[in-house]
Amino acid sequence: MAKTKKKNVPVILVTNDDSITAPGIKALVEAVKDLGRVVVVAPDKPQSGMGHAITIGHPLRLHKVHFMDGVEAYSCSGTPVDCVKLAVDKVLHRKPDICLSGINHGANHSINVIYSGTMSAAIEAAIESIPSAGFSLLDLSVEADFTGAKVYVKKIVRQMLSQKLDKHLTLNVNIPAVDETLIKGIKVCRQAYAKYEEDFIERNDPHGKKYYWLTGEFVNFDKGKDTDVWALKNNYVSVVPVQFDLTNYSLKKEIETKWKF
Amino acid sequence: MAKTKKKNVPVILVTNDDSITAPGIKALVEAVKDLGRVVVVAPDKPQSGMGHAITIGHPLRLHKVHFMDGVEAYSCSGTPVDCVKLAVDKVLHRKPDICLSGINHGANHSINVIYSGTMSAAIEAAIESIPSAGFSLLDLSVEADFTGAKVYVKKIVRQMLSQKLDKHLTLNVNIPAVDETLIKGIKVCRQAYAKYEEDFIERNDPHGKKYYWLTGEFVNFDKGKDTDVWALKNNYVSVVPVQFDLTNYSLKKEIETKWKF
Repeated sequence: MAKTKKKNVPVILVTNDDSITAPGIKALVEAVKDLGRVVVVAPDKPQSGMGHAITIGHPLRLHKVHFMDGVEAYSCSGTPVDCVKLAVDKVLHRKPDICLSGINHGANHSINVIYSGTMSAAIEAAIESIPSAGFSLLDLSVEADFTGAKVYVKKIVRQMLSQKLDKHLTLNVNIPAVDETLIKGIKVCRQAYAKYEEDFIERNDPHGKKYYWLTGEFVNFDKGKDTDVWALKNNYVSVVPVQFDLTNYSLKKEIETKWKF
Repeated sequence: MAKTKKKNVPVILVTNDDSITAPGIKALVEAVKDLGRVVVVAPDKPQSGMGHAITIGHPLRLHKVHFMDGVEAYSCSGTPVDCVKLAVDKVLHRKPDICLSGINHGANHSINVIYSGTMSAAIEAAIESIPSAGFSLLDLSVEADFTGAKVYVKKIVRQMLSQKLDKHLTLNVNIPAVDETLIKGIKVCRQAYAKYEEDFIERNDPHGKKYYWLTGEFVNFDKGKDTDVWALKNNYVSVVPVQFDLTNYSLKKEIETKWKF
């Protein structure tokens, strides 16, 4: 389908997990559309919490849609990770220069990186050797104000386009939900060990059968001042470089020396 | 629901992603049921490729089922990660001593750890401070022979129960699909950079509309002899300790020093 029109204009693939109709993805495209040729391939329905799910057991659909003047866009029936795979193989027919995901309505800091469809799309790009970033604003509301977020998204994407990037680079960027004037700057951080402590609500349905609904309270177990949770609490934009090599090298060494199989 | 009957008997939570009806989960329970009190909470339908997906937008169901004599078991309408969360909160009402996932019908080595529902369930347990392991046999068939796999599962779980474990330990164990006598032993490895190179099959449906179906060819880009892919190719059982801190510390340092925000 799409072909590169001009040389030297970076191709920027944009996706998200809140669906192509979410205000956050519009804000992301508005923030970066002057920086390259933007192509949007995003889910046709909300996909929050999908993690790194892929669609194996049924086919996928792709529809060209009007998204914003001058921006090529497609809605996809799959997960955020499916969107990246399909965009590369069937829309762009090449790797984009970078892939951006978001702006998510709600936080993806700390352990949430693992559950997040937004971040999984970005990680999928990095696996495919496309440098990427996922952006999240700490405001779940559909009426969230993305004004400040857009300024920081542009700043970070500009840096991405001006640096020689590691091909597996992925940035997990979270933006505090405060007025732009209150944001103190950008902090490069590590992922906090902070998570939702689960508690399922247990109720009976109209037919007297039990059902359970996930809920939970966010708890920060990590007192470090170098974490994303700390940075956000102190009104910084947090940037965590993320990797997909999950090997725990220190435990690897320990098991090699201590365990007897 | 369940309560611990005897003291000092380890409680072993078992789940998978191929569903509670898969032969692989039966093989796993058979392998470990002498080592502790086994409780099964597994998906009521196949959930391969679900990654770390969780169910947010609708309720979950849990049904007590007959699985195997003397083994308490429940089927759950959610993802593998949902199963672990629900099991801890609503079935066991405590953390099990260890959590085991599998035995998956098919490989979860290299980059597949990220897409795998089997491994995501194990990683979820580790996030919740429950040491865990995911097991996979390199045979997709529903008629796969788990005889050799069971021997190695038991060996590894015995070690887990005899060691003082890091509470966030997760092992990604893959077992070659060869006769037990041909397995050379167990190798502790790192995750290979090997992945499926995607290619979507593009067809028209009976109504003339296009659809896409994920397919791909497995390619190993990693020539190291310390990887899981190498070990499996050489008939070793591969054990990769897995972490959920995705921070890329070396890129963090580079960005802190070189980037100008």
